[in-house]
Amino acid sequence: MHRATLREVAEKAGVHPATASRALNAATESMVNAGTAARIQKVAKELGYTPNPIARSLKTSRSMSIGLVIPDLTNPLFPPIVRGVEDVLRPAGYNAWIVNTDSQTDVESAAVDSLRQRNVEGFVFATALLEQPLLEELAASSVPMVLVNRSTASADIPSVTPDDAAGVVLAVQHLIDLGHRHIVHLAGPQDTSTGATRRKAFRQALEDQDLPHDSSGIHYCETWSEEAGARGMGALLDSGPPFTAVLAGNDQLALGAYDALAERGLRCPDDVSVVGFNDIPFIDKVSPPLTTVRIPHVEIGAEAGRLLLELLDDPTRHPRSLLLPVKLVVRGSTSPVSEARMP
Amino acid sequence: MHRATLREVAEKAGVHPATASRALNAATESMVNAGTAARIQKVAKELGYTPNPIARSLKTSRSMSIGLVIPDLTNPLFPPIVRGVEDVLRPAGYNAWIVNTDSQTDVESAAVDSLRQRNVEGFVFATALLEQPLLEELAASSVPMVLVNRSTASADIPSVTPDDAAGVVLAVQHLIDLGHRHIVHLAGPQDTSTGATRRKAFRQALEDQDLPHDSSGIHYCETWSEEAGARGMGALLDSGPPFTAVLAGNDQLALGAYDALAERGLRCPDDVSVVGFNDIPFIDKVSPPLTTVRIPHVEIGAEAGRLLLELLDDPTRHPRSLLLPVKLVVRGSTSPVSEARMP
Repeated sequence: MHRATLREVAEKAGVHPATASRALNAATESMVNAGTAARIQKVAKELGYTPNPIARSLKTSRSMSIGLVIPDLTNPLFPPIVRGVEDVLRPAGYNAWIVNTDSQTDVESAAVDSLRQRNVEGFVFATALLEQPLLEELAASSVPMVLVNRSTASADIPSVTPDDAAGVVLAVQHLIDLGHRHIVHLAGPQDTSTGATRRKAFRQALEDQDLPHDSSGIHYCETWSEEAGARGMGALLDSGPPFTAVLAGNDQLALGAYDALAERGLRCPDDVSVVGFNDIPFIDKVSPPLTTVRIPHVEIGAEAGRLLLELLDDPTRHPRSLLLPVKLVVRGSTSPVSEARMP
Repeated sequence: MHRATLREVAEKAGVHPATASRALNAATESMVNAGTAARIQKVAKELGYTPNPIARSLKTSRSMSIGLVIPDLTNPLFPPIVRGVEDVLRPAGYNAWIVNTDSQTDVESAAVDSLRQRNVEGFVFATALLEQPLLEELAASSVPMVLVNRSTASADIPSVTPDDAAGVVLAVQHLIDLGHRHIVHLAGPQDTSTGATRRKAFRQALEDQDLPHDSSGIHYCETWSEEAGARGMGALLDSGPPFTAVLAGNDQLALGAYDALAERGLRCPDDVSVVGFNDIPFIDKVSPPLTTVRIPHVEIGAEAGRLLLELLDDPTRHPRSLLLPVKLVVRGSTSPVSEARMP
């Protein structure tokens, strides 16, 4: 389909292309004689001319679009975060273009290149690893960006994250209140801030409470998936220390713990209490409904959107990071430890 | 940050910009004297020159990107479809830019404009309504596009959808096999092909089986949400015909049916059997695990990706639409009707 060019409009109207361009831009229209402008606009309409926005974006660099980079959309944690980001950006006139990286750094880097080539004005990343050269490079090039849910080891990049350490303390205290003294941990991947922070806070909480905290009570899961949680829980049951409760690094790992318990004929919470982290959608409907640390998904996304808008407004603004409060939601997967089960 | 231009590279290398351009493009490099090309490439490297891809895309119109338009990412049905589309497009070198429209046509239309301005090469839409002028317009402009999960009333646009009618027959037959003869339907929005097709198939199945099929046994839900399902089930329980089983238009409506039953002190499946549709992630873990019609999410997305690749390859290809088979997954939400409950 042929699209009429500015040159064709100018030719038909008998003016220089620069004049046609001025007449067709609201900001410069007044620089052209009113009668001429009207004639040019009429010709443009007749020819079905629309300004070529890519050519225009070469000059203005404004796309009114941002990139939203997600590690795994099938993890129910992320869609509500996306919603929060969009709730803030949309009224400000921005589109979010979402990219799903499957946690692959080469996919991420290709997608980021492609989005930058299309002049997105900034990024929200939910994919941060503690060490991630791509993000450091972008930050060094002053690309406006905000990290959401996870942060990097460096504090130079603005981020919005849940208060992971406080969440762990709430979960451990809840288990202690129920009489548990032998608690183990299914730790998430340690190259993410969520995995590392929660694991460290778990260890610290046991120490602060004078509970046994042998390193054999922590299993490191390779991914954040239910399958990894099932394998980890299996390993703890088979060769870990005796325990009556487990804190999982996230809700999917907790679901995996359910699977491993069921496979061995153990009951939750009667035999083992399970606590998750995140309070993903639907986790209140599983059997038993999961006790978990609720992070404010939509609000985390919305705050990330607000930080990004501030940066787009004033790119020189000093980076700020936000830690959002969490709370414990007690459901059916935790119960008082039965004396018979005390190791 | 200043980005070195082609002109600056050419100036420093002492050549015409057109020569510099040829030397820096693998496809045209051989047109330049080898020594000159090497000198230009060295200068480009020193100055940190990278070709301006927007300027380039003005000429080539190739962005190697497609738009993937989703009505609601927080509906667990869609992320696996996204994954299927990406599984096919990524190895073919395409990025998918995902847009979440919140089922708002103005958001959709703005996002589609913005993506077209950035030269996406085609679209996959999961947002189709039976009547949707935007999609008809795009089709009329020969924009390569494929509909996924839902179709429009016109068969002109290629689509990949589950065999909704066959799924309804499987569900109704299962309930009949369990002795149910009084079955009602929570119908989804009738402006979507999934809502309308499933509702018509339900009515037809009852008629074919000589079961009562009064129109009072169908409740029309305004949205596909759990809340709408709870309201609809409440209305059927309060003022519908007597029944022992309900077929919900999708799994979220079925979850709403659970809520309405629980609120009235009724048990599923003892008092009322419930069947859903889609088999979304996690629905096997709710209590009771939901009997539902499984649609092949990832495969539906993958087939849509394949159809789009074919269209990108040959835009004149005659539109094809695919109907993918479904199957019934029997879980704990359906049981034989108890004689005491027979109306």
